Order: sequence, then C-alpha cells, then structure tokens
Amino acid sequence: MSKARYKALLLIADGMGDRPVPELDSKTPLEYASTPTLDRLAREGECGLMDPIAPGIRAGSDTAHLAILGYDPYKVYQGRGPFEALGIGMEVRGGDIALRCNFSTVDESLRVVDRRAGRITEGTRALAEAVNGIEIEGVQCYFKESVAHRGALVLRGENLSPHISDVDPHAEGEPIHESHALDPNDPNAIRTARVVNAFVKLSYERFKDHPVNQERRAQGLPPANIILPRGAGIAPVLQPFPERHGVSAVAVVETGLIRGIARFVGMDTMDAPRATGGVDTDMLSIAETLAEALRRYDFVLCNVKAPDLCGHDGNARLKAQVIERFDTLVARLLELYAEPFYLMVTADHSTPCSVRDHSGDPVPLLLYGPDLRGDEVLKYHEYACARGGMGRLRGGDLVPILTQLMGVQEKFGA
Amino acid sequence: MSKARYKALLLIADGMGDRPVPELDSKTPLEYASTPTLDRLAREGECGLMDPIAPGIRAGSDTAHLAILGYDPYKVYQGRGPFEALGIGMEVRGGDIALRCNFSTVDESLRVVDRRAGRITEGTRALAEAVNGIEIEGVQCYFKESVAHRGALVLRGENLSPHISDVDPHAEGEPIHESHALDPNDPNAIRTARVVNAFVKLSYERFKDHPVNQERRAQGLPPANIILPRGAGIAPVLQPFPERHGVSAVAVVETGLIRGIARFVGMDTMDAPRATGGVDTDMLSIAETLAEALRRYDFVLCNVKAPDLCGHDGNARLKAQVIERFDTLVARLLELYAEPFYLMVTADHSTPCSVRDHSGDPVPLLLYGPDLRGDEVLKYHEYACARGGMGRLRGGDLVPILTQLMGVQEKFGA
Repeated sequence: MSKARYKALLLIADGMGDRPVPELDSKTPLEYASTPTLDRLAREGECGLMDPIAPGIRAGSDTAHLAILGYDPYKVYQGRGPFEALGIGMEVRGGDIALRCNFSTVDESLRVVDRRAGRITEGTRALAEAVNGIEIEGVQCYFKESVAHRGALVLRGENLSPHISDVDPHAEGEPIHESHALDPNDPNAIRTARVVNAFVKLSYERFKDHPVNQERRAQGLPPANIILPRGAGIAPVLQPFPERHGVSAVAVVETGLIRGIARFVGMDTMDAPRATGGVDTDMLSIAETLAEALRRYDFVLCNVKAPDLCGHDGNARLKAQVIERFDTLVARLLELYAEPFYLMVTADHSTPCSVRDHSGDPVPLLLYGPDLRGDEVLKYHEYACARGGMGRLRGGDLVPILTQLMGVQEKFGA
Repeated sequence: MSKARYKALLLIADGMGDRPVPELDSKTPLEYASTPTLDRLAREGECGLMDPIAPGIRAGSDTAHLAILGYDPYKVYQGRGPFEALGIGMEVRGGDIALRCNFSTVDESLRVVDRRAGRITEGTRALAEAVNGIEIEGVQCYFKESVAHRGALVLRGENLSPHISDVDPHAEGEPIHESHALDPNDPNAIRTARVVNAFVKLSYERFKDHPVNQERRAQGLPPANIILPRGAGIAPVLQPFPERHGVSAVAVVETGLIRGIARFVGMDTMDAPRATGGVDTDMLSIAETLAEALRRYDFVLCNVKAPDLCGHDGNARLKAQVIERFDTLVARLLELYAEPFYLMVTADHSTPCSVRDHSGDPVPLLLYGPDLRGDEVLKYHEYACARGGMGRLRGGDLVPILTQLMGVQEKFGA
C-alpha cells in the first residue's frame, strides 16, 4: 500500500539540450521541432532551466543521472571502474570492486605485444564467457566484454580494497605488471591484488588456445590471449532510493548504463518492447510501458537515448525529428494513464550538434501536474524555459520537488 | 601549444553593481551611463545576475576574486593575515604565515603607550625597510607598511604554524604580550611564536633610535618604535589555476591586491602602461594590454578598479562617467583583437553610492562569444540582466562556464 498521494514520472530525453543551429533557422532542435504536447504542458505547468551537476559542468550520463536521482556524484563517483561496468549492463553492488580491462596480446613471456589485441571486434563475448563467474579465494569474479577490445571486471566478496596497482603496463614491449597493494600493510588490498593476478593468469590459460584465438591466428591477427585490468574503483554503498524516499520506484530503461545505475540505487527496472536505445526506438511502446509502470510504482524514471545520439552525430535535423516523436510519446502516455500525476520532463545534459559531445549548457525543465503555481511560459524549449517560474535549478533539486508534491517527503523540522 | 578551442577574458569592473540613484533619474550608474558596446554584446550574447559568493553576502575584492576564480573563500580564506599581505602587494606563497601588524609606541618597559603610534602617516616605508627581509632561525621575515600605522608580516620557512597568540595586547597601558603556542605541545607553533617574538624585539631595537623616530620626537610626536603583530593566518596551498584547468593564464592588474591574488593562484601578471588603479586610469592602454594578453594566453583575468572608488566616494555621476570609459575599453579591445573568443563582463561585488561600501547585491553578468544560445536582453545593466537567460549564478560558476565553452573542460563521467 503506497503512502504517496500522487505518483511521479521523471522523463529524461538524453542530451536533448542544444544551441541554435544555422540550418534550423538558428533555432535549437527542440525549439525547431513541432512539440504540441510538450508546449501544452509547459503552458499549463511550470518551467525552468536545470544544471545537472552545477552550472558549466560537463556531465556524463552516469554522473548526471546520479545527481538527478539525488546522489552527489562528487562523493559517489570514485573511480571509473564501477561505472564502466554499469555502463555495459553489469550488475554492480555497493562494496564491489570494479576494474576497466583490455583484451590484449602477450607473448609467451607475458610481454605485451598489443594492448588492444589488434582492436579485436569479434569473439570477445565467447572469450568473456570463458572467464565470467569464476570464484577465486571466495571472491566472485564477473567479467563482461564491452565495445572492441574493452571490458570490465567486477569482484564481489568480503575484505576487498580498490587500493591496488594496475596489471596493464600502459605500454607495449613491457612485461605485464603484477598488481600489488598500494599500502604494503593493507591486508585487504594484498588479497585483492592476489585475486586480480590469479584472474589475469587464468584468462591467459583459458584464452591462449581458445577457438577464437585459433581462428585469429589462422587469419594472421594477434590473439586476444589475456585480460589486463586497470583503474580499480569501489562501488559506494548508497541508501536505496525507495528506502530514502519511502516510495516504490522503477526505471524504464533502454540502455545498459541506465539499467545499471537504476539497479545500483535500488530501483526495479522494466524494458519496453522494441525500445532499442537508438533513433529507431519504439516511442509508443515506451509510452505503454510507462503507463504500466505508473500503475505499479510510485516513482518512475525513464531515459530516452535517441536525442543524445543525434547530438553526438551533429545531426540537428534528425534530432528535431526524434524530439517530435518524443512529443508523441508524452501525448500517448497521457492518453494511456489518465490519472493525475506529476510529470517532469528534462534532459540529463546538453549535447549540442555544434559540439558533438556533452556541453555544460543547462537543460530545459518542465513540471506538469495537479495543484501547481504555474508560470507564463508558453513553449517547451531552451529559451522559453529560461524565463520559467522555477528559475535555474540543479539536478539534485528535482527529486525533493517531486517527493514534496507526491506527499511522501517528511517535514524537516517542526 | 594550447589545447583551448577558444580563448576567454573575464573582465571585472570592480564594484560596478549599484542601486538606483536619485540624481541619476533613479537609474543605477551603469543604467544611466551610455554604454553602446556593452549593450550590443548584451543583445548578441547572454546575460544574468551573479552573486560573487552567495546571495546577500558582502564580498571583499579578495574573497570575491577567489570565488570567481573557482576557489571556495570559506575554505581558502583562513585568517586575514595572508590577504592583508596580498592586499598591499606582498608576495604570499602557500604555507606562508602572515600577520596583520601595527606600528605602535611603547615605553622603555615595553608597555603600550599608543597602539597606532599617533596614527603615523609618514616614514613607515623607511622603518619597514629596516626590518624587511631578515632571517630568524632559518625563517625569512618579510615586512611591508600599509596605510597609516598598518603593515603586514610574512614568515616563510619550514615547520611554521598559525596557531599562536597575538603580541598586540589590544589595549593601551598594557605591556606587550609574548606570543605563545595556543597548544603548548605544538612544536611548530612554539617555534613560530619564538620567531615572532624575536622579530618584535628586533623591530624595537632598530626603530627606537631610527632617524624617523628622532624626527618624530623632535616634533613632539609619539615614536613608531615597535611592530605589534596579531591575527596570524596561514596561506593555503592551492592547486594552481593553470594546472587545474589545463590553460595558460594571466591577469592584467592595476592593484597590488589583484596582483597578489593572481600570483597566489599561479597566474602570470601583466601591467598596462598608465593603468593607475584610479579614476584617471588609461582604459585604452588596458585594452591594448588585454589584446596582447589574449594573443599570448588562453585565459585572461582583468580588474578595472575605478568604479569601486566612485562607489566608496558616493560619487554616482563620476561612476557613470568611469563606466562610459570602461565601455570604450571594451570597444577598443574588440577592434584590437578580432578573433572569436569568449568575453565575460561582470563585477566582483556591488559598491552602491548610497552605501559607500560593498553591499550584498548581485552584480550584472554578460557573456559574449561564438555558438551561444543568447537571450532577449537588450541592455547591459542590473535590471536588464535580471531577466537574462543565464538566470542567477554564483562566482564559482563562471570559470566552469568558460572552460566548457573554451573546450578545455574534461567531461565528468561518461
């Protein structure tokens, strides 16, 4: 039985913020796009600008989502390892040690011939399966391949430490390094380094004559015959989002990164059929899944990836089209879920087509639902929102604004 | 070789923010002044309001510049000593101990007769030179006179501590105090107190028969025959600005305080010929020096002092005139340096003519350069900027906004 008076959906159009684009009549893609539903919600609700982390800070999708979910990324984001692992869809729990890895080529004396194994593109999944899930000294070792020669290693067990040196020598022609404890008197780091070294040795034993590498040798390609970890980090133990706010919470996700972050903060996840995480994603299927999520949970997070991809590609016209389809997603959702609820629509960062990467520009923010003050904004885009009644907020402000409206936030004081 | 895609200039009109002035048709000096260039940049760029430290906080020029350069003044500003010393143009390095001092009059038993030596106005430079640069127990002691009976002492060496008591008894008729360690078991504080006591004793020996004091006695004035230090503080060790942001950086300075702060954060400094720090300063010479600075460096800071002086004097009409000359500085700079770059124009604090001192009012902020969103602001003054697209920012937001535009800021996360 939920104690929430209203439910809420935090709907994030990844990388939607932009700058004026000459070929779009010097409008931003969001301003140029026809978005009748978002404009209506802006007219009837409240708008503002939002800095995901702080003004001018170029946020990643990972740090931005942490901030927007109310976790200070400067405290939580300790080392890239855990978020690399989350980013490729691995499960990461608080206390896990995670390392970034390369598939590499070594000779028989374990000297590095090619740190990237000829930038291998195929066969890494089969190699990863050969070492994933093994146990060393009671530590569970999970390994998953990422793009090309990359992968991530997650260690789960008692008495582990991230304070260990890299196995990857970061240079070719060098022998691989033994990982060691940064503090020689730290028993947890000594143990963790020993586990990592054993894992590396095992990867060499299982990879060196693996069919994938027999095939590579036959083609004259360098074998991916070892895994070289680096950049160990510990996943912090966070108070789960549902416990912190006293709500049930789910994320409707398209990508491994958002799935990983949602699970990491203790949210359930749901997949929308045919939601691809690409520009071809099925927006109406996402709307249907969101309606179902709102029926079952108090708090729903959703990230739609497509606008960010267009920003990275510098394709402003496609970005505007994708945003028009995002507008239909919202329209369809409001038909399918007709109960009053709070809808916040924003982006996790700007990905201007002129920059082709994340920028530090603020993003538009829209809040719609019952019993709001409202303001005079008539359209949902970067310029109109800059004059909104909510002013300029930060990512960390969003959840408190929603939980107070939902009626689940305790009064601070008397 | 610079990695910056664009260069940036942060141009600060000291104390420019103001309140409506009756004799200026109830306009602020900035609003009243004719500033065609700043208005054009406001029209073509983006505006906002900025609180140098936080809303309502009355910032000094020192704390404001620290905040604007990205250093939290609440962490960095530990005791006034180091910033008093910076303010009179002394070099201060991270780890230095600095103390505020008075030239005072004592009798032969070292009892304080006049804490301010008759508010001495002349001869203090010669007295200061008699004790400046001496070494005690391997500690370099730098002393410089300030206005009237004031001065500052900087101690540079190993194993020093600011945790010592004052020599100044803060009352006349009292004997001078021996400085002692606040914690009697702190060897660094014990050593620092011993050095300070030796310095005080030396000042008495060298001052008591100094020609300046012979002359003062002949005129019936109390001799300035001792230096009484108080308020020890340690200068924090900061990450240098160029290292933190991966840019080359220079400050074009008019005053000792800004020079000191710029050097303290690791920036180079340049002087503009005939830049006096007064209302008679050569604004066009500053423009020429800024153009040269932009050719040679990635990031340029500049402070123009004159508006603040007019505010302290309550001279609104002169303040408006000085601001008109500041506008010509900007116009000339844009002629001399025609490459695209980012220009941010703001103030370090408001100095309203009605207050004749720094107030906690926010200051106008203007950002101009390529590939900005822009907004609907048509003029550069306090009221117009309050409706700007950048909203209300803080001093600490400015450098991240510039570095992300310059293309030198790393993405936080993935």
